[in-house]
Amino acid sequence: MQALVYAEVGQPLEYHTSVPDPIAQEGETIVNIRAAALNHRDVYITQGLYPGVVTPIILGSDGAGIHEGREVLINPSINWGDNPRVQGRSYQILRIPNPGTMAQQVAVPAENIVSKPAHLSWEQAAALPLAGLTAYRALFTQGQCEQGQKVLISGVGGGVALFAFQFALATGAEVYVTSGSADKRGRAEKMGAKGSMDYKDTGWGKALGKETGGFDVIIDSAGGTGFQELFNAVRPGGRIVMYGGTRGKIEAISPQKLFWKQVSIIGSSMGTGKEFTDMVNFVDQHKVEPVVDSVFSLKDGQQAFDRMAAGLQFGKIVLTTD
Amino acid sequence: MQALVYAEVGQPLEYHTSVPDPIAQEGETIVNIRAAALNHRDVYITQGLYPGVVTPIILGSDGAGIHEGREVLINPSINWGDNPRVQGRSYQILRIPNPGTMAQQVAVPAENIVSKPAHLSWEQAAALPLAGLTAYRALFTQGQCEQGQKVLISGVGGGVALFAFQFALATGAEVYVTSGSADKRGRAEKMGAKGSMDYKDTGWGKALGKETGGFDVIIDSAGGTGFQELFNAVRPGGRIVMYGGTRGKIEAISPQKLFWKQVSIIGSSMGTGKEFTDMVNFVDQHKVEPVVDSVFSLKDGQQAFDRMAAGLQFGKIVLTTD
Repeated sequence: MQALVYAEVGQPLEYHTSVPDPIAQEGETIVNIRAAALNHRDVYITQGLYPGVVTPIILGSDGAGIHEGREVLINPSINWGDNPRVQGRSYQILRIPNPGTMAQQVAVPAENIVSKPAHLSWEQAAALPLAGLTAYRALFTQGQCEQGQKVLISGVGGGVALFAFQFALATGAEVYVTSGSADKRGRAEKMGAKGSMDYKDTGWGKALGKETGGFDVIIDSAGGTGFQELFNAVRPGGRIVMYGGTRGKIEAISPQKLFWKQVSIIGSSMGTGKEFTDMVNFVDQHKVEPVVDSVFSLKDGQQAFDRMAAGLQFGKIVLTTD
Repeated sequence: MQALVYAEVGQPLEYHTSVPDPIAQEGETIVNIRAAALNHRDVYITQGLYPGVVTPIILGSDGAGIHEGREVLINPSINWGDNPRVQGRSYQILRIPNPGTMAQQVAVPAENIVSKPAHLSWEQAAALPLAGLTAYRALFTQGQCEQGQKVLISGVGGGVALFAFQFALATGAEVYVTSGSADKRGRAEKMGAKGSMDYKDTGWGKALGKETGGFDVIIDSAGGTGFQELFNAVRPGGRIVMYGGTRGKIEAISPQKLFWKQVSIIGSSMGTGKEFTDMVNFVDQHKVEPVVDSVFSLKDGQQAFDRMAAGLQFGKIVLTTD
């Protein structure tokens, strides 16, 4: 089969046309991939930031395709385990050390297959799984977002941030966004953001908190010193949900503010099988259209990785098989 | 009536025998106090740490007594409001700027009166309200503590910490404690603690986390640099609930650890009317006996304040009226 192969740190990804087809192990099944999507983790792996990855390997956690004549999505959360609070020890994100979705075929557990909502194109469908699942758990399970609440999404260009933004809008929340890019802020406002802030401006959190009365739910993947702005923007009783930490450690949290305002800081990552099914049903019901930044063919995969590494995307970067 | 009056920062509390009786305003009723208890907030107020307290004033948030022939406790959470997540703008802790419980009578909203469990003495009953409510919300509502879970209570000599410890034991959790005092650790172990740590020891959090497999719920009121030990002791999916911050700001939280371990840091303060009723029912059902450190008569009130300021207590310090 055709596949995009990661062989070595710092070297371009290799497009091969005669990689052996995957073989389904017990409990697994084969999906014929029509489209795959990139996540930051794929790029980080090619930069050598994930220790212990054995190469050569086919990357990719997001895939949509055909399974025994049915159009399906793949839940990238594999072997979550029994505890809805946290993934267990045998947990995998599709699917290191096994091959991923950037190929014509992938072997996955049969229980990870879910029907594709009919309104989604292959590209949109491939854009959904990992980022949609992460956004859904962060926003609803952990953040307890409800209709009428005020929600703030930081760094709105990213895949998870955009889904959190769209899901919050779909559920009837009043949504604000931040981005360091005026272009991205403008695009979010066109999509329905009530307001936006440049997170590079000093004091924006306090100002926006005052203007809005504060946020019930804040979804962040940056952390770092900018976290103080979020802490200033959260309303009493509010939840700050973190699904990433690209800006590093969080400093100088005041316990007094935390307990008197009854604020929670909640870590969130990926999601359960039930959350995946709920998320896909939510997307189907609300006809959410995933934002596809750009589409590349599998053989041009390196260009897709370069685009993500440069941080230029607004929405998901997708690869298609022929 | 007799009352203990706080007149001026740095001056001893004054015991008066002819303070005018309180007058019930609309929705209020008068309780004849049999015993009151101290909380840190009372001491902090006499140290001038709460701005805007108008003197002279009768302090005291904890009281038990007689209301129209019935033995009652007073819920110190006044005007919480409609949102169970957080107290509203007109919230009072019994009951600045109004007079408190360190007197023969106090006026409180009629809805704040709850029947005293029969197994409690007046001293035990007075020890319960504020600390019991704070512990109940922190442990159960915010911490989601359940039977069979592992729980860590920091600084076990304090009133809230002791109730959290006793409630966790009563609910069938496996409970560990920390204290800087070997005597307090020993007493907690006699009461049923599975183990204890001196929080002044470096690296105790990682060691205890390894030994126990980590804690589902940690209840803390210190914060500061010692928070890292708690963060090292929490298990994946666990909750660190903070109801105080005597050691200052929390530094250097790793977002990666937070999100990948799906850990929450949750602020908690006081509780709702429903939580107060639930807490009193829990104490009644499990026959929890509040730990009374010492009892002073109202006229010796300053000695009680001195004892709390010195941090020597294990359990609550109680004042009785004659």
